Amino acid sequence: MNKGGAVLVAFSLALAGCATAPGAPVAAPVAAPASASAAVPPQFQFLYGSGEGGALQMAAYHALIAYVTDKAAHRPANSVVVAQGSPLVSARFVPCGDKPLAVAFDVDETLIDNLGFEARAAAGEPYDSARWDRWERAGASAVTVVPGALHAFDELRDLKITPIFITNRSAANAAAAEAMLDKLGLGPAKHLGNLWLLGDVAPGSAKDPRRWKVAERYCVIAMAGDQLGDFSDRFNDPMPVAQRRQLAVHSSAGGLWGKGWFILPNPVYGTALKGGIDDVFPADKRWTDPGGQR
Amino acid sequence: MNKGGAVLVAFSLALAGCATAPGAPVAAPVAAPASASAAVPPQFQFLYGSGEGGALQMAAYHALIAYVTDKAAHRPANSVVVAQGSPLVSARFVPCGDKPLAVAFDVDETLIDNLGFEARAAAGEPYDSARWDRWERAGASAVTVVPGALHAFDELRDLKITPIFITNRSAANAAAAEAMLDKLGLGPAKHLGNLWLLGDVAPGSAKDPRRWKVAERYCVIAMAGDQLGDFSDRFNDPMPVAQRRQLAVHSSAGGLWGKGWFILPNPVYGTALKGGIDDVFPADKRWTDPGGQR
Repeated sequence: MNKGGAVLVAFSLALAGCATAPGAPVAAPVAAPASASAAVPPQFQFLYGSGEGGALQMAAYHALIAYVTDKAAHRPANSVVVAQGSPLVSARFVPCGDKPLAVAFDVDETLIDNLGFEARAAAGEPYDSARWDRWERAGASAVTVVPGALHAFDELRDLKITPIFITNRSAANAAAAEAMLDKLGLGPAKHLGNLWLLGDVAPGSAKDPRRWKVAERYCVIAMAGDQLGDFSDRFNDPMPVAQRRQLAVHSSAGGLWGKGWFILPNPVYGTALKGGIDDVFPADKRWTDPGGQR
Repeated sequence: MNKGGAVLVAFSLALAGCATAPGAPVAAPVAAPASASAAVPPQFQFLYGSGEGGALQMAAYHALIAYVTDKAAHRPANSVVVAQGSPLVSARFVPCGDKPLAVAFDVDETLIDNLGFEARAAAGEPYDSARWDRWERAGASAVTVVPGALHAFDELRDLKITPIFITNRSAANAAAAEAMLDKLGLGPAKHLGNLWLLGDVAPGSAKDPRRWKVAERYCVIAMAGDQLGDFSDRFNDPMPVAQRRQLAVHSSAGGLWGKGWFILPNPVYGTALKGGIDDVFPADKRWTDPGGQR
């Protein structure tokens, strides 16, 4: 996520009631009664409000549980951490040896939904890094655990698999991060033990150095995140948007989704939200409407 | 999806470069070179352009393949079709008997991405049902198959499991729908055989009557869709947005996500996109910023 000089505020103007609707009409749910009708942009509605979004989250954690249960019974030779120097095409992975099993998790919009912070974004407040810093330190009571995650952590405990948190929250707020994770039932979390924050191991937001550090000590059998960089920094190498999607679908990564690499939905912020019309919609899939006024 | 008198056009104004960015900076991919920089709303970027969206789609189809492979070896007593008259809490399912195995699929933004049509929506064109009708009849060349779906269909063929399409595309355009599915490698599709369109069996967009019709003849072991109504019409009963999300996560549905019910992401249109601030963000998860000017 690029916080450089440019900050985008996705600002949806709802001109009238309901979503654009390909296909035939569907009997839509009646809108909630007495609550505020201030327009919420669709990506926020999807992730934080919808059953569809909750279902995707449950599905990811169900898949993770099934997968780690199987790996606990059949130890893999290799982890799911791409080895240093390896590309994503024909990727090589850090071997497991006889290291104890672990699962690496991103935190924001992977294990937790930052409802209190994101409600303000949905209302149109532009991103402000100082406010995010205050949120890290004081916002834990306005966070919820992503559906399915607590059950996954129960299973990890039963299987004696260690959860490792790799997050770009600030190391200056380590105590608050530990307390939040503990309070939510995802703990215990210990900075530089199983909690790795921004700048730990190497400067900057890249997560590979922290993954390699963890993989020295643990056999990382699965990883969960909402951004491709939660799996490999190679996805954040400079490349066109369409090429990055191809890499996710067709490299060694392609075979890992739901089978070692578990992706949670996040259309609200992050590295997925890039590209102009020509990046997102391939030139050979354009359509000239044969009829109508346009 | 409600097409009544009110149509929403989600219109994102990108005020500057990149997505709102909780957490620390990440080395973001360089934007694509010479392509048009017209702003694409984030929900379109996510679904059609991003590796994150493609990864979610691959994960869903990987989970479906693993699940049906297991069920082909261990026939279930019950289908995953909620029985007529059953609620979603403590749901009852249509029994399988010795009926041949099948998987029911929605089509739009489940098996296929309607790129040509949605590129126009992303550019700000309001939804127009007459244009959608022309798209059904003439747009097949600007459609792509969702990543992972073709591999899933290969597996279904190998396992001799019948794919059934239940879609709200128009019965007047049945021949075009059949031709499109055949051409994309998802066929053969035959209207009223394995392809069920809007108004088949019962008038209107509700899909349960078609599911029950199919379940008279097949043991439906899995279903795939991008809207909760692709699984049960009970999700479209009138209820507040937050209650609908709770139903998806905590009823019998909760245990089915990724385990019989396979959900594909779609933050671009549909029943997920409902709710004002109080619907989407629970009152007990609001946050008062302790610092800053606001």
